[in-house]
Amino acid sequence: MNVQGKHWRTIWPGADGESVEIIDQTRLPHEFATARLTTLDEAAHAIRAMLVRGAPLIGATAAYGLWLALRADASDAGLRHAHTTLLATRPTAINLRWALDRALELLQPLPAATRATAAQRLAARICDEDVAINRGIGEAGLTILRALAARKPAGQPLNILTHCNAGWLATVDWGTATAPIYLAHDDGLKVHVWVDETRPRNQGASLTAWELLNHGVPHTVIVDNAGGHLMQHGQVDLVIVGTDRTTADGDVCNKIGTYLKALAARDNGVPFYVALPSPSIDWTVRDGVREIPIEERTPAEVTHLTGRTAGGALATIRVTPEGSPAANPAFDVTPARLITGLITERGVAPATAAGLRELFPDRPAGS
Amino acid sequence: MNVQGKHWRTIWPGADGESVEIIDQTRLPHEFATARLTTLDEAAHAIRAMLVRGAPLIGATAAYGLWLALRADASDAGLRHAHTTLLATRPTAINLRWALDRALELLQPLPAATRATAAQRLAARICDEDVAINRGIGEAGLTILRALAARKPAGQPLNILTHCNAGWLATVDWGTATAPIYLAHDDGLKVHVWVDETRPRNQGASLTAWELLNHGVPHTVIVDNAGGHLMQHGQVDLVIVGTDRTTADGDVCNKIGTYLKALAARDNGVPFYVALPSPSIDWTVRDGVREIPIEERTPAEVTHLTGRTAGGALATIRVTPEGSPAANPAFDVTPARLITGLITERGVAPATAAGLRELFPDRPAGS
Repeated sequence: MNVQGKHWRTIWPGADGESVEIIDQTRLPHEFATARLTTLDEAAHAIRAMLVRGAPLIGATAAYGLWLALRADASDAGLRHAHTTLLATRPTAINLRWALDRALELLQPLPAATRATAAQRLAARICDEDVAINRGIGEAGLTILRALAARKPAGQPLNILTHCNAGWLATVDWGTATAPIYLAHDDGLKVHVWVDETRPRNQGASLTAWELLNHGVPHTVIVDNAGGHLMQHGQVDLVIVGTDRTTADGDVCNKIGTYLKALAARDNGVPFYVALPSPSIDWTVRDGVREIPIEERTPAEVTHLTGRTAGGALATIRVTPEGSPAANPAFDVTPARLITGLITERGVAPATAAGLRELFPDRPAGS
Repeated sequence: MNVQGKHWRTIWPGADGESVEIIDQTRLPHEFATARLTTLDEAAHAIRAMLVRGAPLIGATAAYGLWLALRADASDAGLRHAHTTLLATRPTAINLRWALDRALELLQPLPAATRATAAQRLAARICDEDVAINRGIGEAGLTILRALAARKPAGQPLNILTHCNAGWLATVDWGTATAPIYLAHDDGLKVHVWVDETRPRNQGASLTAWELLNHGVPHTVIVDNAGGHLMQHGQVDLVIVGTDRTTADGDVCNKIGTYLKALAARDNGVPFYVALPSPSIDWTVRDGVREIPIEERTPAEVTHLTGRTAGGALATIRVTPEGSPAANPAFDVTPARLITGLITERGVAPATAAGLRELFPDRPAGS
C-alpha cells in the first residue's frame, strides 16, 4: 500500500539483481526505513529480529533467503543448511515451514547450477500468490462493507473496528483484515477505522495506525478497553480482525483481546467478521478453546513499553512496580458462535464446519 | 493498609498538630513518598495535581484543606474563599462538593474562634466514616469470597480479577473493591488477584499492583485484553470492580473496559460483583447507557505513557505515530443484567431497582 504517496510492498527484489529489500518494521511507527538483505544470515536475522513479521511475510522472506543462500552455495549441503537455518528463526510460524518445505521439494531435484534462479522465481511467485489471496479477501469483504455502508445515513463514514495488525505489513501487500478497508477506501467508500492499540505489543497503535495514516485512511487509535463503549453508542458498524489459526468448526485463534470484542459485538448487534487466507485454517482442530495451546510470552512485554521521547530518542520504560509479577498470554480463542462470517479469498463462509467445508471441498485429505 | 510492613492511611493529621500528611500518589508505583500540607493552597494543589485521587480521598483532603484555611483565616470571607478554592480543584468529583457543603453547613453558624477546631474534627470524622463504610463493604464481600473459596479444591487460591484502582489509595483505607480482598487475605483465606493494567492511565498496573504488593497479597498484572481468555480457562473465580456512579436500576458506570469484563464473566459463568459505598448511588438516573454522559479525556493519555527507565529516571514516551488521532472515553456503563450483585456497606443487593430500594429504604426523597 502507499507510504508518503508511493506504493510499497513489504518485500521486493533489489534493483541490483543480487539482493532483496524489506521495510524494517522494528523502526515503525517512529521511522520509515528499508533494509537490504544480501546473504542467508541477513535474511535469517531479519526474521529472527522481527524486521519482518506476520506469517505470510515471514514465509516470503524465508523463500528469498533461500535464494540468497543458493547464490553463494547451491550444493545439496548448502540447500539443507539454508533450510535448517531459516526454519530455526521462528519455530512456531506455520507459513515459514510451509514456504521452506515447498521450496525444498522444488529445488532438491534440480541441478545445482539452476537452483538459485528457480528459488528466486519461487520467492517471487510466493509473494504474488500472497498478494492475490489478500486481494481476494479484500474483494469478498468489500461486498460486506458496501452492503453495510448502504444502510448508513448519506455522508456518514462506515465505522470499522479492528484489533492488532492484520494489515499489509503482516503480508506482502493489502493485509487480510485491512484488504477490504483499503479496497473500499481506494474505491471512494467513506470509511473510518477504530484502531485498538492492542496491548501488550501495541501492534495496532504502532503498525495498523501507521499503515492507515500513510495510506490516507481516516482512523482513530483507542485503548483496547474502549471498543465495548463505542459499540454501545452505535459508533461501530462492524468489526474485522485477522486470525492466526481457524479451526475446522470456525473457532478463531487471534491476538489476545479479540474474544472480548466479539462478545461486545454480539451484545450490541454489531457484525463481527474474521478475514483469513485459507492456509490459516487448521482442518485437524475443531474446538479452539479446548484444543489450541496458547503461547505464554515474556512478562516484560506487559511490564515495559518502548516509544519515542519528546527529544526524539527511543526509550524503554517500566510501568508496573518492581516486584509485581505479570502474565502474558498472547492469543485467545473466539468461539464460532460469536462470528458473523469468515472472509476468505474464495468468498464469505458462515463460521461453521459445514460453511467452511462447502467453500473448501478440496481441503486436505483426512480432515 | 500496609506498606513495607507498616499500616498507613492515605491521609492523616500531622504529629505537629498544624499539618495534614498524605501519600504522594503521583510518585507511585516507582517511589513511596509522603507530602506535608500546611496551607489551603497546598491542599488545593494536592487535589488538583492528583497527589491524592479517588472520590472518597478527595473529599477527605478537601475537609482537611478547610481546616488548614481556617487556621489562617477563620472569618466568613476566609471560609467562603476556602470553600470556593477547594471546590474548583476537581469540578466533577461528587464527593468533593459533598464534603465541602457538609463542612460549610456545620461551620458557618459557628463563631470564628471555634471554626478551625470544628473543621479539624469534621475532617477526622469524614475519614473515619469512609474507613467504616469500606470496612462494611469488605465484610459483606468477605461472605461472598468465603462461599466461593469453599467450592475450590483444597490449597488452591481464590482467583479474583479486578479492573482499575478501587483500592485503599482511592479511599482513606481498605478501598471498595479491594476491601473484601484485604479482609480475606488478613483472615488467612488464600487469594490471588488478576490486576488489569487499565489503559490508558494504568491505575491497575501502577496503583492496584503497588497496593497488593505492599500489603503482601499475591497478584499478577495482566493487560486488559487477557481477562476473557483467563475466564475461558477457569482461571478467574470472580470479578470485583468499583464504580464511579451506580444508577437506581443497578447499572454501573466505571472505568472504561469494565463492561468488556462483565460480558466475559457472563459468557463464562463467572460471578461479577461491584463494590460501592452507598453515596455513589445516583437515585435520579435509571438507564446508565442512555443517561450518563461519559467524560472524553485528552488523547495524550492514549498516545503517551510515563514510566521509569532502566537508569531510574522517569520518561514519557509516544507509542503511536505522529499524526494518528486518538479518542479517550474514560468510563463505560455495565448494564445491571450483567452484574451478579452490588456489594454495599449494608450488605449485598441484586443489581435491580427493587434490590437497591430494599437495602436503602431511607434513600433521598423524590428518588
